[in-house]
This record gives sequence, structure tokens and C-alpha cells, in this order.
Amino acid sequence: MGEFDLIRRHFQRDSGPAASVVLGIGDDCALLQPTPGHQIAVSSDMLVEGRHFFAGAEPEALGHKALAVNLSDLAAMGARPLGFTLALALPQADDAWLTAFARGLFALADRYACPLVGGDTTRGPLNLCITIFGELTPGKALRRDGARAGDDLWVSGRLGEARLALERRLGTAWAQSVGPLPCGDQRLDLPEPRLALGGALAGVAHAAIDISDGLSGDLGHVLAASRVGARVQVDALPLSPELARLPRHHQIDCMVNGGDDYELLFCAPAQAREEITRLAQACRTPVTRIGQIQPEPGLTWVDSEGHVLPLPARSFDHFA
Amino acid sequence: MGEFDLIRRHFQRDSGPAASVVLGIGDDCALLQPTPGHQIAVSSDMLVEGRHFFAGAEPEALGHKALAVNLSDLAAMGARPLGFTLALALPQADDAWLTAFARGLFALADRYACPLVGGDTTRGPLNLCITIFGELTPGKALRRDGARAGDDLWVSGRLGEARLALERRLGTAWAQSVGPLPCGDQRLDLPEPRLALGGALAGVAHAAIDISDGLSGDLGHVLAASRVGARVQVDALPLSPELARLPRHHQIDCMVNGGDDYELLFCAPAQAREEITRLAQACRTPVTRIGQIQPEPGLTWVDSEGHVLPLPARSFDHFA
Repeated sequence: MGEFDLIRRHFQRDSGPAASVVLGIGDDCALLQPTPGHQIAVSSDMLVEGRHFFAGAEPEALGHKALAVNLSDLAAMGARPLGFTLALALPQADDAWLTAFARGLFALADRYACPLVGGDTTRGPLNLCITIFGELTPGKALRRDGARAGDDLWVSGRLGEARLALERRLGTAWAQSVGPLPCGDQRLDLPEPRLALGGALAGVAHAAIDISDGLSGDLGHVLAASRVGARVQVDALPLSPELARLPRHHQIDCMVNGGDDYELLFCAPAQAREEITRLAQACRTPVTRIGQIQPEPGLTWVDSEGHVLPLPARSFDHFA
Repeated sequence: MGEFDLIRRHFQRDSGPAASVVLGIGDDCALLQPTPGHQIAVSSDMLVEGRHFFAGAEPEALGHKALAVNLSDLAAMGARPLGFTLALALPQADDAWLTAFARGLFALADRYACPLVGGDTTRGPLNLCITIFGELTPGKALRRDGARAGDDLWVSGRLGEARLALERRLGTAWAQSVGPLPCGDQRLDLPEPRLALGGALAGVAHAAIDISDGLSGDLGHVLAASRVGARVQVDALPLSPELARLPRHHQIDCMVNGGDDYELLFCAPAQAREEITRLAQACRTPVTRIGQIQPEPGLTWVDSEGHVLPLPARSFDHFA
């Protein structure tokens, strides 16, 4: 199987009714026609074998996750998907692997009407690079730098499940006692981007980010960009039944420093509480108020009695 | 040096006066504002160490080439650059390497007003993935499927120089006798995208492609997409002084099956000959008529006396 056969067989499909795609795979460039007057949102993520996923990872889940982490970036911006490119380095052209990978990739792509429009295929150590494009109305983007003192701090879904599942797979001692983790495994392998919620919050929330490196680190990015601080109620953090089996300090560590959550962390004025609750219900996405933005820089974790908890910030860093 | 320091130090710059970039590096997505009514052209290329470039390749040239091959795709579409993302897997955070890489990258980016707007940085086997965005007027794109029987076949610049330089570096016997190759080395390491010519041809030429895998293979893509054939005058192919030192059959092989040329191959009606000559002069880019599009499928190579030459097609294929 040659390079062009590989693309034709596994990645070129009838483009279907995606009105925004003028020209898809097979030319020097793809051509997209955004809605007139809209802005284009762009994000790129590179996943490396042995770094972002285990060697020998199940390819269908990998296809899902590679796209999901990019869709999550669009969600965090409040953008609507237009399409994506896939650049793929493969040690060899393995037909069964490619079939499963493409199945996982396109199942998610179809669900969000986000077509593959182009890319590159080459031989090399396994590496997946997806660049995604979305669109949104000017002025409505959920940027990191828009948080204001007094804003409520919200998070979607539940935190820390993927981290617990990861620690269990890595053989970490404290994560072995909790038994099977169907939710955690699902969260780790098949994260669900919060696109409906992100789109609904555009123009309502002041700022947002998706939690990929852990609540602590990603909240830190929002605070730094917005030049504000935050006070987070640790006891308000949404706890999952699987995490509840752990001792409390491990629960907190997973929720605060977890990573791979792909939940939305967002800041919104207190007047928007009812609207946010209504929007989240319409999106069938649970949301929880976990704290408040403060005028002074710094991130403070407090328990339900207001006592400050000395939590170390440990965001993931590829070159730390 | 951590991941975020690395990005700040080497890749985050004052965005300057790029009106099309609403939001650059540092958020979940970059935000671009295309010219109202325009289409977006998108292309993605992945360069792998030991595959697309030699291990230990000079990083400044690598920064140039990684962006140049993407700009060349925009040129081949007739699009104007808007910006690009860079996803980078690095074995380690080597400050000197990154400084030189960024110098080569930004020198070219600045020359074409094509800002870096986002991307990803991770640890892994050296891999560079650039996705580039351009814009163009609807209906003016230089697609591969627009060639028509009777069209002139044109090529910009000269072909085969990069291939000769590559063979010499690889130690291939026939390429050793030609002596130093300053032009070939320049073409191989620092290719120049034909953006001015591509932009000028939009709306004038019927079809175009950039020659990255070799004239034979890339012309084959145009013919297949347009469902036509072509007759190419081998003696009309633009020969460089460095290639002229080779025996004729090696000259032809380099020009026909070379690769890494990043010249534009385009098809245009005979009535446009004068206009094309004028546009090419205005762009200071030499162009040569090398043949004609035929109604019947198939690619025929002929000499100046009209004799058919039996040239094997040997386009580059990563998985052949």
C-alpha cells in the first residue's frame, strides 16, 4: 500500500453536506468558506507515542482522543467546528491499525460535523498532529484574559477521573486498591469535548479554558492572562463515585492536579448564574460553582470552613 | 527551561501589525479575521528527522524549510498568507538549537507577513508539523482539477537542482563528479516559495500544483484530477548550469523525477501567454512553457524532434 492509496483508502471520504468545505483532501490546500463576518479559531495539538499515549495504545480510542483534545480547544473558545487537518507519522502502513484509527476519528468527527479536510502522511516514529478550525462571532470568544474580580468560577462535569485511571494503569500503589474504573477509563481513553456548553457560554462567560494539564495549572493560566487571583472551595469540587473510594488527600490531588479532564473551567459574572444553570441544563452538561475571582493575584484553596489548604501546584510540563 | 518558558523565549513575539490576527499564541485557540467574503486555504506538512531531513540538520535552514514547504502550498493555490501554527516534538529543549531554528523560521515568516499564531511543544523524536492558513477570493483558487485540453503547460524557475544536491550529499556515484553545487544546496536547504507568482496567477491559470515530489508525479496528480493527459517537451525543461555538467540522461532524470523543487507547475489557456509573461516579469520569476494538455489521458515525454522518450514515472512515496 503506497502513501496515496493509504490516504484514499482510510481518510478520503465523500465529503457529504459540509457547506463550509469548498475543497477537501487532495489538492495543495483545502478551501473553507466561513460564515461571512465570522472569525476563525485555530488550534493544533501533537500526540507522541510513549508520551501522550502508551506504546501499543488501542488505535480506535487514539483516533477519538486525537480529535477530542482539539475539539476541546474549540469548546474552550466557544467556537463552532469547521474542519480539521491530520498529519500522521507512522512506523509502517498497518492496514488494521489504520482502519481502527480512522473509525474512532471519524465517529467523533461525524458527531460534531467536523470534516477532515487535508493533512500529511509520512513514515516515522508514531506521531499524530491535528490542527482544527472553528468559527465564531467577533467579540464572543471565551478568551483566557477576560476574567474579572468578583466573577464566579465554574467547572463542567467532574475532575480527576482520568488521572486516577492513569495512575492505576501506571501501577501506582495508592491507585491499585480502588478496583475497576469504568468511568475513569472512559474519561482517559475517550474524552468528550464540551462543545455544546462552550458554544452556549460564548458571549455569556467572561473567560474559559479547557482543563488538560490539571485544574491548578490551567486556572493559573487564566489568572495570569487576566491579571487576577482566585479563591477555590476545595469541598465544592465535583467528586466522582470512583474518586470517592480514595483517601481524601488523593481525591483532592486528582481533582486539583489531575490533567486529561477536558472539562471547561470558566468565569462569569454573578448575575449570569441563572442563565448559566439554564444553558448547562439545555446542553445536558453538569456545571458546578467552585470559587470566585479575586482582585489580588494568587490562587488560594480553602475548605468549607474557610481554612486555607496548602496545595502545591503541579501542572504538567513536557520540559520541566 | 520548561515548556511554557520555551514557548515564551523562542516563539512568542510582539505580534506587530498583522491585522488578520485577532489573538495569537497563548490561548486555547488563535483567532484570525479573514477579509470579508474570502475563502480560507489550509495546508499541513509534517517533517520527520531522518526522513525529510538529515539527523543533525542545521536548525536555521530547517526553520526556513519547514515554513517554506507550507508557503509553497499556499502559492500553488494562489492564496495570500494569513498565519501558521507550529507543532514541535523535540528530544530535548536545546536552547542553541531553538534559537537558530526560530531565526530561520521567523526570517521567512516576516518576509511574507505570515505570523506564527499558535501550536504545541512536546518531548519526542524530532518532528515539525506546520499548518498554514491563507485567504483568497472565491472562484480564483488554482486547483488541480481545472486543467483543460489545449492548455499550455508552464513551470516556474528551474527543475532538478535540489535533487542533484541531495544525491551528491547521499554520496551517489554519478553526482560526485560535478563539483560544488551552491545553487543546488541553496535550493535543497532554503527553498523559496513562489508566492508572488501564485498570487498573480489566481484567476488567470486554470490549474496549478507545486512540485515537491518531482515533475512527473506532481503533473500526474494534475492530470488525474483534471481527467486529461499531457505532452511534455523534454528539451524545453529549464536546465540549470549545475545540472548541465551531468550526462543528459541524469539531467533529464533530475528534472523529471527530482523532487524538493517547490516550483509552480501550471496550466493556462494559450490566449493568456502574453499576460503570463508580463505577470511573471512583474514577479521577477522566470517561467517556461514546457508542453500542452491533451484530451486523452496519459503523460507523453517528447524530444525536440517529436520522438517519444520512454521515461519511467518515479514519484516519491513514503510507503511505497
